[in-house]
Amino acid sequence: MKPRAVVLLSGGLDSATTFAVAKRDGFEIHALSVDYGQRHRFELRAAKRISAALGAKKHLILKIDLSVVGGSALTGHMPVPKDRPEKQMDGDIPSTYVPARNTILLAVALGWAETLGAKDIYIGVNAVDYSGYPDCRPEFIRAFERVAALGTKAGVEGGRFRIHAPLANRTKAQIIRKAVALGVPLKWTHSCYDPDPKGRACGRCDSCRLREKGFAEAGMQDPARTPSIRSNKGGIH
Amino acid sequence: MKPRAVVLLSGGLDSATTFAVAKRDGFEIHALSVDYGQRHRFELRAAKRISAALGAKKHLILKIDLSVVGGSALTGHMPVPKDRPEKQMDGDIPSTYVPARNTILLAVALGWAETLGAKDIYIGVNAVDYSGYPDCRPEFIRAFERVAALGTKAGVEGGRFRIHAPLANRTKAQIIRKAVALGVPLKWTHSCYDPDPKGRACGRCDSCRLREKGFAEAGMQDPARTPSIRSNKGGIH
Repeated sequence: MKPRAVVLLSGGLDSATTFAVAKRDGFEIHALSVDYGQRHRFELRAAKRISAALGAKKHLILKIDLSVVGGSALTGHMPVPKDRPEKQMDGDIPSTYVPARNTILLAVALGWAETLGAKDIYIGVNAVDYSGYPDCRPEFIRAFERVAALGTKAGVEGGRFRIHAPLANRTKAQIIRKAVALGVPLKWTHSCYDPDPKGRACGRCDSCRLREKGFAEAGMQDPARTPSIRSNKGGIH
Repeated sequence: MKPRAVVLLSGGLDSATTFAVAKRDGFEIHALSVDYGQRHRFELRAAKRISAALGAKKHLILKIDLSVVGGSALTGHMPVPKDRPEKQMDGDIPSTYVPARNTILLAVALGWAETLGAKDIYIGVNAVDYSGYPDCRPEFIRAFERVAALGTKAGVEGGRFRIHAPLANRTKAQIIRKAVALGVPLKWTHSCYDPDPKGRACGRCDSCRLREKGFAEAGMQDPARTPSIRSNKGGIH
């Protein structure tokens, strides 16, 4: 029997690729998506499609209404910034930062992993081509591993939890190449922070621009933006 | 203006006392209760009463359905253990342990604190007269403080988050005396893991027995169990 792993799956490029990496690593995948009151639902639709396509053993969608907690453009409390200069993308933490989001996501993933008897949790954070979120950095991930070791029955009674962040030090172009190599259905991945009512990407938020730059550097067309695929109802980016 | 603090409030004796300590420390209290799919709703009713009585600036009840995650007697997946020998209460982690509960509670408290501009979070964990839960120990709290420092915008941009666990090293009797001194409405606090349909305490779960032992050691009657108060509809323990 394969060991189990919990994979945090948002429906974006990075989390979909992380799912494929965990599968390649030999785990039975239990995918976890958190419906935290995002501005739009296209992310969760993408997560469902990817999870089915890549063969999750189970896909759990957990509702946590972070919009009542507030404080982020992604939960509808401020406008999503557009066309930020690259220099600014490198430095500032933007308003799309959701307070303590990855801490919350890892915490619920940890609870589920413990229930499943899984010791491995995968998260698609990236600290190279990213928006500058503090909870995407490797030192944060290490700190959370210590919380997992000390704050759970499974951690105390034996066996260390491992938080895998296989994309932490990859550029977006490297992630895209890996996704292709591992058969990730890129056309279903959704990255835009502020899609139109039909789910089409805005092309101007940080996430769209990092994605576009990544595909350009990888020398590839983004299948989620190819008109022939969109007209086929496959693409939602 | 008083600085703000987020206080995790379950409605039990310890969290109610922690609320009073935070207030005494000079904070404006923002109380957070998590409706995580507990077996019973008396806890949340207690939290509402205590929060109003002690004067929270705001009381937020956040729903996170941990019952779908499973793995605990407190979310209805196993029976609540009764009449455990004291020796066993000292050692084993019982089935009332909710996987990663305090990690999840602290994570959402951290998100809300960051939104509020608060740097102080209070949690009523206790590592003396307790059920042996790993996420009640001081080393866990310290590890979480590091996560808060590294995983938030507020932590990175300046100012350390402090996770206060003022009852960590107190016996239940000491907590009860402090509660009385600080005017906590003990009659409204709810401790039982498995109350009857009217909210009356079972008297046999770990939580009831620790509470009873605490009141006995403090040389006090438990006002939540005094018949005259119960008939007055004030007591729900």
